[in-house]
Amino acid sequence: MADFDIHILGCGSALPTTRHLATSQIINLRDKLYMIDCGEGTQVQMRKMRIKFSRLNHIFLSHLHGDHCFGLPGLISTFGMLGRTATLHIYGPKEIEEYLYPILKMFNQNLPYKIQIHIINPSQHTLIMEDRSLEVYSIPLNHRIPACGFLFKEKQKEAHLIKEMADFYQIPVKCLRGIKQGADFTTPEGEVVPNKRLTRPATPAKQYAYCSDTAYYPEIIPIIKNIDLLYHEATFAECDAARARETYHTTARQAAEIARAAAVKKLMIGHFSARYEDDLLLKKEADAIYPNTILAKEGLTLSL
Amino acid sequence: MADFDIHILGCGSALPTTRHLATSQIINLRDKLYMIDCGEGTQVQMRKMRIKFSRLNHIFLSHLHGDHCFGLPGLISTFGMLGRTATLHIYGPKEIEEYLYPILKMFNQNLPYKIQIHIINPSQHTLIMEDRSLEVYSIPLNHRIPACGFLFKEKQKEAHLIKEMADFYQIPVKCLRGIKQGADFTTPEGEVVPNKRLTRPATPAKQYAYCSDTAYYPEIIPIIKNIDLLYHEATFAECDAARARETYHTTARQAAEIARAAAVKKLMIGHFSARYEDDLLLKKEADAIYPNTILAKEGLTLSL
Repeated sequence: MADFDIHILGCGSALPTTRHLATSQIINLRDKLYMIDCGEGTQVQMRKMRIKFSRLNHIFLSHLHGDHCFGLPGLISTFGMLGRTATLHIYGPKEIEEYLYPILKMFNQNLPYKIQIHIINPSQHTLIMEDRSLEVYSIPLNHRIPACGFLFKEKQKEAHLIKEMADFYQIPVKCLRGIKQGADFTTPEGEVVPNKRLTRPATPAKQYAYCSDTAYYPEIIPIIKNIDLLYHEATFAECDAARARETYHTTARQAAEIARAAAVKKLMIGHFSARYEDDLLLKKEADAIYPNTILAKEGLTLSL
Repeated sequence: MADFDIHILGCGSALPTTRHLATSQIINLRDKLYMIDCGEGTQVQMRKMRIKFSRLNHIFLSHLHGDHCFGLPGLISTFGMLGRTATLHIYGPKEIEEYLYPILKMFNQNLPYKIQIHIINPSQHTLIMEDRSLEVYSIPLNHRIPACGFLFKEKQKEAHLIKEMADFYQIPVKCLRGIKQGADFTTPEGEVVPNKRLTRPATPAKQYAYCSDTAYYPEIIPIIKNIDLLYHEATFAECDAARARETYHTTARQAAEIARAAAVKKLMIGHFSARYEDDLLLKKEADAIYPNTILAKEGLTLSL
């Protein structure tokens, strides 16, 4: 079972190239899938990467530019053809309804499943989704149109019960849950067995943030402080910093500065402009500020 | 210079697979490009096949199912980013406006070029486009929604002037055009030189028809009689004939029967269902009726 994996489906910017596809990625948290952005070609990438369509129930859209959402109509149709019945939850800025409703009306009158759209306010940092294992927060960004990133915050897992100890103390089943959550155990004789003798700590909960598209925007630093992995756009190199400013994008150097200031454990850069033949240029630039920056790449899977 | 080439960008049916992409093809007639259908991923395929975006001015849509048109928004955006200025002509059934206008309004407010939509009536066989070298006719098909195929009819080219004869008779430049178009030449002395001594016949004009998506529909036979190449959908094998009828698609055997009855010079089949691991099954079935059927394949270029 995947614990917390990030699959990169596409990490190019708006212009298509033979090297990169439009933006999309999938987070696999204990075999539940969460998609961020859905550029053209996403469903084909899912097939190629053997990602199970049926395990995806939540799609988060950072903003309504075509290279982040033109794959959605095809994916929605395919879900229908595959006989999906589970509700599909789509989170995005309010324009998402204006985009999707006419397409649904025209192409998907008889979907066998429900689509639930959750409007989010991209200018607010707030909890937008929560389930048993995860909280997702919006991260306001600074782009040409309303845009936000997403913070995926795994919930603390329960401690592992040490089976030998449970057997030794003949702990009744009804007490197990409490012990996993931190309770001590009192034997019928009144002996208190401290929790730390009965359990091994759970693996620490992980945090992942996706920040694209955005200009250099240090306001995000407090939100992403100390997280395990930051995916930050690095559309341009410093030599094109003027162009980055103009188009509300970030340079590789700036992305690394954000990562360093936030003391994140790992940095991955993506959303590469079509103008660079070799993305290593961007990696080198980032590495100078934040060593061991990871270059996003189609087909890459990173386990936290 | 390409004389009359067909490029297959995608030839799968609605469900994406790792083997086939959604439908799109490009006709290259003397270096002018004409696209038929534009499924998701078309623009990436154009890049991969090194097809020049700037030479494409006409897009024909057979019908408004997603696997034939979900690539259009991305292509339109890309044209804008590439600084296109030439008008883009899009031909399709009337629903095309309902599909495109909201998307254009939302994503492409400031395109540097104009999009001209030409509504066609898919139930009529009629001339829908004409330029110096080509006529395009609609071919009514029989699908679940209004759909038509397209007949690309090259115009007869001028005959080739035999340079030695033009020199020998000292033919004035002003007469050349007429001679290429079939006129005789009369010398100043009154001698009439018959056209066939002055010219070699042009290569015969070619005809190509695209018929997808459609149920088995013999009504098209008179329209495509004797053409050089027929692309016909063959979504299913005969063993799934019931499913073909139900979904208004054609089997490979039926496609071959159409080709044989129309006495076309070549048949290419495509729009393959995701259910067949090996398309050779479909080729064998067609070959039994119409030998040497060509299997469409992503990346294939066929010269007429």
